[in-house]
Amino acid sequence: MDAHVTPLYKQNEENRPIPEPGPDEVLLRMHSVGICGSDVHYWQHGRIGDFVVKDPMVLGHEASGTVVKVGSGVTHLKPGDRVAIEPGVPREMDEFCRTGRYNLSPTIFFCATPPDNGNLCRYYKHSASYCYKLPDNVTFEEGALIEPLSVGIHACKRAGVTLGSKVFVSGSGPIGLVNVLVAKMMGAAAVVITDLSASRLQKAKEVGADFTIQVKNETPQEVASKVESLLGCMPEITVECTGVQACIQAGIYATRSGGTLVLVGLGPEMVTVPIVNAAVREVDIRGIFRYCNTWPVAIALLASKRVNVKPLVTHRFPLEKALEAFETTKRGEGVKVMLKCDPTDHNP
Amino acid sequence: MDAHVTPLYKQNEENRPIPEPGPDEVLLRMHSVGICGSDVHYWQHGRIGDFVVKDPMVLGHEASGTVVKVGSGVTHLKPGDRVAIEPGVPREMDEFCRTGRYNLSPTIFFCATPPDNGNLCRYYKHSASYCYKLPDNVTFEEGALIEPLSVGIHACKRAGVTLGSKVFVSGSGPIGLVNVLVAKMMGAAAVVITDLSASRLQKAKEVGADFTIQVKNETPQEVASKVESLLGCMPEITVECTGVQACIQAGIYATRSGGTLVLVGLGPEMVTVPIVNAAVREVDIRGIFRYCNTWPVAIALLASKRVNVKPLVTHRFPLEKALEAFETTKRGEGVKVMLKCDPTDHNP
Amino acid sequence: MDAHVTPLYKQNEENRPIPEPGPDEVLLRMHSVGICGSDVHYWQHGRIGDFVVKDPMVLGHEASGTVVKVGSGVTHLKPGDRVAIEPGVPREMDEFCRTGRYNLSPTIFFCATPPDNGNLCRYYKHSASYCYKLPDNVTFEEGALIEPLSVGIHACKRAGVTLGSKVFVSGSGPIGLVNVLVAKMMGAAAVVITDLSASRLQKAKEVGADFTIQVKNETPQEVASKVESLLGCMPEITVECTGVQACIQAGIYATRSGGTLVLVGLGPEMVTVPIVNAAVREVDIRGIFRYCNTWPVAIALLASKRVNVKPLVTHRFPLEKALEAFETTKRGEGVKVMLKCDPTDHNP
Amino acid sequence: MDAHVTPLYKQNEENRPIPEPGPDEVLLRMHSVGICGSDVHYWQHGRIGDFVVKDPMVLGHEASGTVVKVGSGVTHLKPGDRVAIEPGVPREMDEFCRTGRYNLSPTIFFCATPPDNGNLCRYYKHSASYCYKLPDNVTFEEGALIEPLSVGIHACKRAGVTLGSKVFVSGSGPIGLVNVLVAKMMGAAAVVITDLSASRLQKAKEVGADFTIQVKNETPQEVASKVESLLGCMPEITVECTGVQACIQAGIYATRSGGTLVLVGLGPEMVTVPIVNAAVREVDIRGIFRYCNTWPVAIALLASKRVNVKPLVTHRFPLEKALEAFETTKRGEGVKVMLKCDPTDHNP
Repeated sequence: MDAHVTPLYKQNEENRPIPEPGPDEVLLRMHSVGICGSDVHYWQHGRIGDFVVKDPMVLGHEASGTVVKVGSGVTHLKPGDRVAIEPGVPREMDEFCRTGRYNLSPTIFFCATPPDNGNLCRYYKHSASYCYKLPDNVTFEEGALIEPLSVGIHACKRAGVTLGSKVFVSGSGPIGLVNVLVAKMMGAAAVVITDLSASRLQKAKEVGADFTIQVKNETPQEVASKVESLLGCMPEITVECTGVQACIQAGIYATRSGGTLVLVGLGPEMVTVPIVNAAVREVDIRGIFRYCNTWPVAIALLASKRVNVKPLVTHRFPLEKALEAFETTKRGEGVKVMLKCDPTDHNP
Repeated sequence: MDAHVTPLYKQNEENRPIPEPGPDEVLLRMHSVGICGSDVHYWQHGRIGDFVVKDPMVLGHEASGTVVKVGSGVTHLKPGDRVAIEPGVPREMDEFCRTGRYNLSPTIFFCATPPDNGNLCRYYKHSASYCYKLPDNVTFEEGALIEPLSVGIHACKRAGVTLGSKVFVSGSGPIGLVNVLVAKMMGAAAVVITDLSASRLQKAKEVGADFTIQVKNETPQEVASKVESLLGCMPEITVECTGVQACIQAGIYATRSGGTLVLVGLGPEMVTVPIVNAAVREVDIRGIFRYCNTWPVAIALLASKRVNVKPLVTHRFPLEKALEAFETTKRGEGVKVMLKCDPTDHNP
Repeated sequence: MDAHVTPLYKQNEENRPIPEPGPDEVLLRMHSVGICGSDVHYWQHGRIGDFVVKDPMVLGHEASGTVVKVGSGVTHLKPGDRVAIEPGVPREMDEFCRTGRYNLSPTIFFCATPPDNGNLCRYYKHSASYCYKLPDNVTFEEGALIEPLSVGIHACKRAGVTLGSKVFVSGSGPIGLVNVLVAKMMGAAAVVITDLSASRLQKAKEVGADFTIQVKNETPQEVASKVESLLGCMPEITVECTGVQACIQAGIYATRSGGTLVLVGLGPEMVTVPIVNAAVREVDIRGIFRYCNTWPVAIALLASKRVNVKPLVTHRFPLEKALEAFETTKRGEGVKVMLKCDPTDHNP
Repeated sequence: MDAHVTPLYKQNEENRPIPEPGPDEVLLRMHSVGICGSDVHYWQHGRIGDFVVKDPMVLGHEASGTVVKVGSGVTHLKPGDRVAIEPGVPREMDEFCRTGRYNLSPTIFFCATPPDNGNLCRYYKHSASYCYKLPDNVTFEEGALIEPLSVGIHACKRAGVTLGSKVFVSGSGPIGLVNVLVAKMMGAAAVVITDLSASRLQKAKEVGADFTIQVKNETPQEVASKVESLLGCMPEITVECTGVQACIQAGIYATRSGGTLVLVGLGPEMVTVPIVNAAVREVDIRGIFRYCNTWPVAIALLASKRVNVKPLVTHRFPLEKALEAFETTKRGEGVKVMLKCDPTDHNP
């Protein structure tokens, strides 16, 4: 366990002063914060790739809360408003921001990516423009789940999922599940999903997957063949959520000529792929980095009751039991673990 | 009633020889054929714009049937296969076909557009490539309804409907309804629809419209204002299905800056529109001409049971009562009238 | 002459204090400012549509100058840097900004659009992020011309001009000319341009138009027919730069099925157009509002010497002769009139 | 030397009967045929990947000729017409053809891809729809060069090259050169190209490359760094024309976040790439397979004299010296070797 990270929960809970919002910021009383695999990774390893935790850092970036104070320049929010928090806030209006891809801005602030603190705490201040008012019929936990849901929205948009798409989702963890949810919402005609774990595949079925494949010792080509067989054709779109080399290979073999493989899961930096197979069949390979412009979409969908993300939450812990919550996530139990930061309200 | 057209039903039923399929064609025993407004228009007026009925012409282009004979070069179909018919078949591999927009090909064959005959008859031959096998769980009537559904698919694709879209559908006739269905399938967060008729709006509610507006004497600006008020924001997309000048104007005023107005309904050739309003807000105005590449999408969706088009069929008549069926359609009763062409099977 | 506007030049030159840049701003010593038709319109009429000049307003928005002072937060510019000014600066990070279409942001600051002052003056402060450093081989006047050039870039991008495009530009004023320039740079195979004036068409020839049509009494259909005849086919793209109803009509008739008509010129709010002709041939009608993300593109092109905009400047006046410069523009003489704001340097 | 392939030249010249065109075909007297690396590869190795030469096969697919006979159904060509030949002809109107991507159709006929014969011969018949009339001001050799030019057009279109693009072309062989030509035509502001050979880089300069890098022992990251340094920024687009693993890696490192790497060169099937680097910066990786819809574009450009491909032809041989021509190509001399198939006319 990394000394830099873990003491934060304690410290956070007990010692940090309540911050003062700047003119364009709001102060929030945090309500629900989901734990992400990256939180666990920072906690355990103190780094993800080039991002290294050097100073104590607050974790958490799947969050919602209530406005308690607004900066002088804030007009669209007021104390008492319930909001979902988009954790990435561009610091400069650079070329990426101006062209609608602010997630790629190299100077972006991002909760719980060192050296930026996250929002797994009691009180947190954030750019008001990146706090989105929740309608009355959307719960705090749904608000917090917009963050993982956004990964699915961004992935499926980059993939070009549209009416009638056949989609292969590789990996049935939380991110695989949100991709199933989103692909179906976007009109996919059929979704097939793979995983090693039968129980995870069962969860995928529950959120809408049409077909499941429990992978054992198959070669990438064999997985691709099973996908085609179940769908009745090769999928136009593959969403790869594991980062495992063999899965990326299967994703290339499986995708129909002219289609798209989206890389969501991240594994080793260097992977060996059948590049000629992809190239001569014009299978595009596209990565995603987080998301952009997804919160308004997600809120509209949650408000319309067109998508049900509630089954994703399988565990809840009060903030003071953060350690236990992290241990649970680390063991891979359930789907999404929620920390409840408001001692007076542990409701969803 | 136009002398050129009406006798066809009788003649068709009684006198025309059963055609012989060419090498790339199939002969079909027709099962279900929906009546379209254009069929009624040719019947009543003998022309639509520049398309003039000069010789007796068989009507009908929303159709499905059973293969009874295949040409020598046909490999993907065999006698007994149940198929839906795409009525437009390109005659030349011209620039439009090569770039994926074969609906715009000026020499396209199209059922029941003079001088090409339609398929409201007992036996009909068609290009095998434009007959699509129906899965067992898709009925003949669903197969016939793919044609109007395709108008919605093409319109919503051209409109760019996607996850979270707010959509305004203008006009609640059969084409307005399929646009509601399709927009929701593509992930629209909310759809508002207008019409003069309360009963038609009721039908729109049933197929999924979130909000309805019964239009009376409102100005176009007032309609736009009501749309915004109900949605909580201006829609990014408006699908105009009436062709009426005031409705097109309302469509421009209503659409959010940067959004798209799709023109589906056709009215007078020349209309007066607030062009500066559209231009300086970068509201794109896009028409549609029929559809292309929609049958495979529609069949996948119908097979997946993700869309229910069955409520659209409100009347059924045997082919020998075609006149009665046309009169019913002309009176604007119900939504979709189906003619049953197979005397041995009047099932849906 | 409008009492609200004209006195500005005098006042501006003599009385206004030199402004102090804010933390994210720079103070500029202005060098070259082109006169736009909209400047003349505000000067003459005191309004354009809903934009009404209520208080004295400095005109000018086609401009370049030299940084003389930088705000505390500015890092990419320093005193002495020569810059081109993008006149539109978003005030809020709203949905339009976040999706890369900041020109549509309703709260945008824009030079010389009431109530925002322009930069036809000696000293002017502006958002540092919207001042772009000019390479040594790009002159101040080229820098000022980026503004009208940007209209062409935005129009041709929205039109989808690409390699081999056949393009019809309607109207051979300054904006028509920049569209010819840009369309050719983007790979258009042939450009035909129309105008009433032979001398303006001659200028179009000089900047690269392949064919010209001097329009007299032709009907819109006749103009369309001439365009097709000269190009050897219908153009995929029409860029309409006059705003005249008959020209918009000609633009629709002229454009190939599946193509795009871009509306750049603005005329009367309501125009009558052959909407069915456009709709059933899927000719998209798209307006433009100014531009976005064009300055970096334009600077790269000017630096590469791939485009020569210098012939567009036909007149130069020192700032103190602004009235004479405006009178010249009003008479429609030449193409672009430049005002030289730096008394010590009247070079291009 | 492969026994299956080489005798063809002799046989072809001497023995094959003049074919008879079918109803939709034309018979051509061949004029100029360029030699492609793939021709040499089939000649030397008898196979490329899964395409194996089993029976004697005529090589050649970069070709132009004169119509000498037309099938009964051909209306747009007549004897005496000079034409360029698009070597790929779809056999079925499958999903790829219908959506405008006919190059991906698995059953496509393609000249000199086994088992389909090429057109390096005296008389050759071809689908009339895929023969394009050359304007009088376009030579036969320009017509033959449309084929390699098409690879550049397709690659740059798939790459999204547009006005102001900064482009990195990896590899300065014939295909690298056409990509330079095309990128500049599409408005690229600057193109940097790499190669091992100084003479090849010199040729790239001549056709328009702005910067060249002679690669020696640099790591992929070092190449990327040099590219950025010369352009003054990272390129949005990289066109990889070598297929070498280290070059593909350099292409990923070099490309700006949000940009595109197009794979044109084909090397080993499996390559190791820094996939996380590409994914988290949303650098899309897209292959190309030949081209589609490029002949009309290329002819329009050649007719407009906007592109000069003539310098690409460095050697000419009469058909009877085919062996010498192939040996020259195999040695990597010059850029493009042309075979002159018409004994009465060896002009360009």
